[in-house]
Amino acid sequence: MPSQDLNVGLMGLGVVGGGVAAVLQEQGDAISRKIGRRIQLKKVLVRDPRRPRSAQVPEGMITTNPEEILADPEIQAVVEVMGGTNPAARYLRAALAAGKHVVTANKEVMAKEGPELLALAQRHNVHLLFEASVGGGIPIIGCLTNQLLANEVRSVRGIINGTTNYILTRMAYQHASFPQALKEAQDRGYAEADPTNDVEGIDAAYKLSVLAYLAFQQRVPPENIYREGISRLEVQDFRYAQELGYAIKSLAIANAADGAVQARVYPALVPVDHMLAKVDGVYNAVEVEGSLCGRVLFHGMGAGREPTTSAVVGDLVEIARRMNGSGPPPLVAPREQAWAVKPIDDLYSRYYLRLNVSDQPGVLAQIAHILGDRQISIAAVVQKDTNPAEQTAELVITTHTAREASVQQAMKQVSDLGVVRQVSNLLRIEE
Amino acid sequence: MPSQDLNVGLMGLGVVGGGVAAVLQEQGDAISRKIGRRIQLKKVLVRDPRRPRSAQVPEGMITTNPEEILADPEIQAVVEVMGGTNPAARYLRAALAAGKHVVTANKEVMAKEGPELLALAQRHNVHLLFEASVGGGIPIIGCLTNQLLANEVRSVRGIINGTTNYILTRMAYQHASFPQALKEAQDRGYAEADPTNDVEGIDAAYKLSVLAYLAFQQRVPPENIYREGISRLEVQDFRYAQELGYAIKSLAIANAADGAVQARVYPALVPVDHMLAKVDGVYNAVEVEGSLCGRVLFHGMGAGREPTTSAVVGDLVEIARRMNGSGPPPLVAPREQAWAVKPIDDLYSRYYLRLNVSDQPGVLAQIAHILGDRQISIAAVVQKDTNPAEQTAELVITTHTAREASVQQAMKQVSDLGVVRQVSNLLRIEE
Repeated sequence: MPSQDLNVGLMGLGVVGGGVAAVLQEQGDAISRKIGRRIQLKKVLVRDPRRPRSAQVPEGMITTNPEEILADPEIQAVVEVMGGTNPAARYLRAALAAGKHVVTANKEVMAKEGPELLALAQRHNVHLLFEASVGGGIPIIGCLTNQLLANEVRSVRGIINGTTNYILTRMAYQHASFPQALKEAQDRGYAEADPTNDVEGIDAAYKLSVLAYLAFQQRVPPENIYREGISRLEVQDFRYAQELGYAIKSLAIANAADGAVQARVYPALVPVDHMLAKVDGVYNAVEVEGSLCGRVLFHGMGAGREPTTSAVVGDLVEIARRMNGSGPPPLVAPREQAWAVKPIDDLYSRYYLRLNVSDQPGVLAQIAHILGDRQISIAAVVQKDTNPAEQTAELVITTHTAREASVQQAMKQVSDLGVVRQVSNLLRIEE
Repeated sequence: MPSQDLNVGLMGLGVVGGGVAAVLQEQGDAISRKIGRRIQLKKVLVRDPRRPRSAQVPEGMITTNPEEILADPEIQAVVEVMGGTNPAARYLRAALAAGKHVVTANKEVMAKEGPELLALAQRHNVHLLFEASVGGGIPIIGCLTNQLLANEVRSVRGIINGTTNYILTRMAYQHASFPQALKEAQDRGYAEADPTNDVEGIDAAYKLSVLAYLAFQQRVPPENIYREGISRLEVQDFRYAQELGYAIKSLAIANAADGAVQARVYPALVPVDHMLAKVDGVYNAVEVEGSLCGRVLFHGMGAGREPTTSAVVGDLVEIARRMNGSGPPPLVAPREQAWAVKPIDDLYSRYYLRLNVSDQPGVLAQIAHILGDRQISIAAVVQKDTNPAEQTAELVITTHTAREASVQQAMKQVSDLGVVRQVSNLLRIEE
């Protein structure tokens, strides 16, 4: 039984707001089971109540008046997913001043006013959390403010704008020009009609400002972050970089040493074997270098309805867990119904099989016959490394998805064939 | 001023214990500034007080009697970094039963008795945290139990044993045989004299059992996890896998569907463009697939004194923050002394320069002269894409580390040369 509810007022019912409303309503029981408390959606602020929306919210919850959330004593937490600085910042301040916990996805407000808002939260003894403001579903903010806190952070380096990373990935792999790649990103809905905020690094600078404050406990105003956009890159830059052993990525970097911070956003050459060079498409990644943890990298979806909702609801869970109740909620709430633990026989996987066989005609036919009898479909066969002296060859077979038990039985039968010296290896292929 | 101290008893002063003792003593002030509370080392349990140790701990703190920690009412939290199941598990139970918070790095105990220990902690209203038991400095446990909690987790896949990953990396890139690579890992201290626990996947199965419990809230006993070691892999498997577009990695995988879990540890083929295929050497990585966050990957050092200490102290920070005091500690405690924010002119970086120049002798000499005058050392020069019609060529120059202001001034001067049509691009190289 939930020991105490957390009543939530949601401000904004766009893409992310719709996701949050859906999860709180549809997965309320699952979350309540996990944390021992219910996160209850109470009211939702919208600008135009008649606008059609993807999220189903009961009529009575909808309001156009922010005071119905800000002045409602039953609402303990406000989720702001409106975006923009105004009136969002004003609502955030009002909510904190009214003693409400706040969860926001607003990178611009957090970059410009984060330190003041956090101080305000502290004065009013409430939480202000903003995991969704940077890196979408990647839990970078929680990690910087909690798990990695024993570290003196030396640097934060990240690919934190999915739009530019998508464009750069197209330029690198499809040799698209910048205008072509931008057009494609716009067609796919990854870039806006006016792409300035993304391609000129403004969005990334807001996010870097937020990360730098957490990493160094030191304000780095977005206007003090040096910025270069990606529009000057040409196809040959990618080619030359590749020849020199580098990828080109738009990086947001902040590092600190000797009581000074340096922060910048620009396209940079990254060695191809570095993990950041391997972050492609709309993915984001952030690498934190700490005095103890060394380099820790986080990689995931940096935007979108579901990943951002994951971050917002994660923050609400954090607040619900830290509420004073009858004691701390369980770290893990075991399921009442025990799940079966499946044996390996029930695994469905693709397989890699290496066989040592007689180098003579008809061998493959015999093996294929056995596999076919057990519904194991062959994806590829390669004959390798013939040994004329011993009259043997190595046969490498990959299969489509098959059941482990069938593959094991087939390999037992195969190993009994006169033409098969041994089944040298059986490995699973993990897609 | 700290509103309340957290007094800690440390059990074990080996590699990790030494790291924890050092950080709590040397960085006590920095941590206290960040969280508003002091984490105070009070007593340290050792087996042999005369053994020489790397960590300096005051004589009076050392004890060989566990009761001096377990029965001391002033000690609120016990850190167990002794390893092994006995007497560690007994001490953990005793500490929890005595109402003390517990932080442990003990994957074996957590895999075998984690659910019971967590229930015991819950009954006694204390925290049991174990970030250090899986993935070293990678904050995977905190993320599964907190930030990602809004997700229904579908799968956890990881490279969670650094020893085997080091061996497989040597086999893949240096074409070493398994015995050679194992010997090398032993020589470097990555593998033990008896490597069974690592190479047969026993260590990884313990860790996977811990991860699966957090991901699915469902116990998956380590003995129910299917295991295959890496000793049967041969050099040609890596070659064939590579030709087919795969890397071979020892993966620990648990996935859940329809009320059943499947968990296994084995070497598997992973597509080369998957992030897990790029995890090399002693690094670890864990990928969580959640219903909302999609695939989030965590990458970092999976073992070693500092990364493990980062995790242990991070758990202590978590406990200190959740203690009831005069209110929640600040999420970010800003530094009293403001740091300078350096301008881009002060950046030291390597550079990539692309110039469009006249295709004639002596051009490079003129450019090199200007760079040399400003102490900018050239790393590489490549002439690319000569255009005979326009009598131009592209010159790509990379530099060693230089100061941004010098490079910008030099490029201004270079662009004024009669033989230079334009400085087409200037990018930084981020190593």
